[in-house]
Amino acid sequence: MKIQNYRQVAGAEAAPGVIMRVVAGPAEGAPTFVMRVFEIEPGCATTHHTHPWEHEVFVFEGRGTIVSGDTEKPLKEGDAVTVLPGEQHSFLNSGKGMLRVICVVPLVDGKMPGMFAND
Amino acid sequence: MKIQNYRQVAGAEAAPGVIMRVVAGPAEGAPTFVMRVFEIEPGCATTHHTHPWEHEVFVFEGRGTIVSGDTEKPLKEGDAVTVLPGEQHSFLNSGKGMLRVICVVPLVDGKMPGMFAND
Repeated sequence: MKIQNYRQVAGAEAAPGVIMRVVAGPAEGAPTFVMRVFEIEPGCATTHHTHPWEHEVFVFEGRGTIVSGDTEKPLKEGDAVTVLPGEQHSFLNSGKGMLRVICVVPLVDGKMPGMFAND
Repeated sequence: MKIQNYRQVAGAEAAPGVIMRVVAGPAEGAPTFVMRVFEIEPGCATTHHTHPWEHEVFVFEGRGTIVSGDTEKPLKEGDAVTVLPGEQHSFLNSGKGMLRVICVVPLVDGKMPGMFAND
């Protein structure tokens, strides 16, 4: 069992103005999936991409927009998003404060899959 | 893609004073894992149990205690917890307000596994 606050976990830049912190996953011994926290600055977004695995996302702070192709839908605190394999998606901070979300993905061959498949 | 706020998802009593809401998973088409929100009233706790799959948990509101056998560790907002397969665990609300956590588990045979294996 491992407990760590996301604020103490080293982050990596996933896109301009987007920091990803891996908070639970294979480094902690989890065999199936990996949980990350994304912190997105106002006006910034994750890349618009697709991949063959699902996302399960939970917005725990802020407001934003999920973009999928030509479609945009609003996001707010408490929203859960299921992104199915193959669905295009980008998370945009369209609010004034930080947008913070949990994003869980399955492991592929025991590792966190690359972020930018089929950009 | 499906977006739903956890407050609008029907809940089920997982233990006295503990409501579980399934916010992303097989009902939305996700093939690998399922995300639930647990709302735990002050003084209440999930059952102390083990099972052969992992939990990945994120505390997004409140304070609590994770109990594992004779061990207790504090939990606060922003903490991520990896519970490995076979580790005993119970989430206790030891604070004054509600304790709200995300808990992700893998699907077993395409379904959310029972909650109370090896109680």
